[in-house]
Amino acid sequence: MRLAVLGVGLIGGSLGLAARERLGAEVIGWDHAPDVADRAVTRGAIDRGAATIEEAVAGAEIVVVAAPVGALPDAVGAALAAAGPDAAVTDVGSVKHTVVEAFGRDDRFIGGHPLAGAEVAGVEHARADLFDDATWYLTPTRSSQGVLFERLHRLLTAIGARPQAIDADVHDRVLAAVSHLPHVLANIMVAQTARALGGEETIPSTGPSFRDATRVAGANPPMWADIYHANRDALRAQIDDAVARLSRVRDILDDPAELEAWQGAVADERRRLLEAGLVGAATRELRVAVPNTPGVVAEVALTLGRAGINISDMALSPSPDNRNGVIALWCAAEHAAKAAELVRGLGYPVTT
Amino acid sequence: MRLAVLGVGLIGGSLGLAARERLGAEVIGWDHAPDVADRAVTRGAIDRGAATIEEAVAGAEIVVVAAPVGALPDAVGAALAAAGPDAAVTDVGSVKHTVVEAFGRDDRFIGGHPLAGAEVAGVEHARADLFDDATWYLTPTRSSQGVLFERLHRLLTAIGARPQAIDADVHDRVLAAVSHLPHVLANIMVAQTARALGGEETIPSTGPSFRDATRVAGANPPMWADIYHANRDALRAQIDDAVARLSRVRDILDDPAELEAWQGAVADERRRLLEAGLVGAATRELRVAVPNTPGVVAEVALTLGRAGINISDMALSPSPDNRNGVIALWCAAEHAAKAAELVRGLGYPVTT
Repeated sequence: MRLAVLGVGLIGGSLGLAARERLGAEVIGWDHAPDVADRAVTRGAIDRGAATIEEAVAGAEIVVVAAPVGALPDAVGAALAAAGPDAAVTDVGSVKHTVVEAFGRDDRFIGGHPLAGAEVAGVEHARADLFDDATWYLTPTRSSQGVLFERLHRLLTAIGARPQAIDADVHDRVLAAVSHLPHVLANIMVAQTARALGGEETIPSTGPSFRDATRVAGANPPMWADIYHANRDALRAQIDDAVARLSRVRDILDDPAELEAWQGAVADERRRLLEAGLVGAATRELRVAVPNTPGVVAEVALTLGRAGINISDMALSPSPDNRNGVIALWCAAEHAAKAAELVRGLGYPVTT
Repeated sequence: MRLAVLGVGLIGGSLGLAARERLGAEVIGWDHAPDVADRAVTRGAIDRGAATIEEAVAGAEIVVVAAPVGALPDAVGAALAAAGPDAAVTDVGSVKHTVVEAFGRDDRFIGGHPLAGAEVAGVEHARADLFDDATWYLTPTRSSQGVLFERLHRLLTAIGARPQAIDADVHDRVLAAVSHLPHVLANIMVAQTARALGGEETIPSTGPSFRDATRVAGANPPMWADIYHANRDALRAQIDDAVARLSRVRDILDDPAELEAWQGAVADERRRLLEAGLVGAATRELRVAVPNTPGVVAEVALTLGRAGINISDMALSPSPDNRNGVIALWCAAEHAAKAAELVRGLGYPVTT
């Protein structure tokens, strides 16, 4: 397995470390700052640095663009221009519709987004275990090549992540709710607290829950400005929703019974969200007979992703005449029946 | 030291455990549910249960009312009616202006609020170390007896807490910002996420930062409904402020430079808040000569509290003729000069 990593910071460096340690992959790195590639070699995150994107990408089976969100359109464009016809090209940006709109028709491009990171940046803080058990979203389109999706899925599983297929637009809407709005709200809590506490010398301690709630406030300003801006449409909708909800809370502040009903409803919603985040231990294999046409793997993966069913592993086997094939999928045992039903609903025979 | 604890749940039970273990105090408990007092005895949180508030309070030097916020006015009123003329009466509610407005003119009452708790309730989960290093707000008024404030301060320090004097109104405004609004926002994040994720079966995992940000969502519905309602004026002001800030963020979503400047400003504010929360190790003693008149101790404690200076320990010594006295205060060494200046500004001589 030969991997090109364009941008060797915390994410690119951790991916390189994990791929080298756990897969024995050969990892070629490139960074717009040349000394970063040198440091990545020293750190063991890449085998060698390349002087140009073309040199890094030459012969790579998978190209991972680990650039900041604002730089992604140019960087992914350059990667696709340089990559061979059989290379999978992906990225790691927190906002997906921009790159998917620009490049989703190229059958080599599949957007990606690992839910992993740290409060520190740079290849110096890269860790081979950064992605262990982390959800790694993939946003294939109808145009995506199934074999390239499978190859990416296999890489991510091998480095410990849990790949999950999702529509780019759904991804951006979900991330606006679960990540981008929470960052905005953490900022607002800090700003309001700073104001409530008055001048510089009147700061009482605030308790551990405030620290938890505002841990992400003010995180990495250039990176987060990029993310808010790139996902501004979905984030604006979330802000409008938050304002409407705050107004409703304001309206019931005089009514303890309504406040208790609201708090109780949220308790139920939270329990449901947490339970859904649990991963079952037992897995089952599903074998799906599919035609060897573009978009089938994306269709199956997205259908299961939409139903909240995580594909813990997958393998594609083409038939001898290359006109049909089998997708072997592994998912949690309690989801197997539902997964089979959904895939049969797409018109493909399933054996469990 | 004889202590009466009215309401033997997590907070009252932990206070009883700590006072018995660390001070050798005799702790009499009362609870509106009689079996709770029995369980508190079994747990070692109290020496014995009393059948009535009057019986619990008889002979107590300190009476702690550990009832829910909504029940506090009645419970504190009953405690004051039953307590002797030399007993200090305090409470542990998260909202202070209601009880302080009702009872702040009684020279035995000093409101209190420990920044401690757990996700679990009940005396079964009481722990002697629950208050270790926790801020415990006290809200003395001009009417409060200095000796009773000192007695309470000594109890709290002995059980590991860090008492901090604060005006009741300032307390409620600060808590609205650092605790009550964050709980409202956590609820809103959960509700919006549940909506963004659509129907029951489409829940992808959301990453650890979402779990951190929403840890308190839906917490203890009756208790939090009480708190929101009791502090509704300050909370309403915080909600209005949050709505105004959300609207401003919405307005700059098209402008990456403004977004970055905003994120950077919050990063600075957060750093300042966290640095201010740190506690210096070295302490200094200040000796303050004061007239033996009501309100002096409250005045000194509140003045230092307003300046963010924590009193780690205090002792009152009346002069032989009982007309003057000395307050010995200990505070962080780096605050000693400022503390002395502030106390001198009140007109009292200070020796450091």
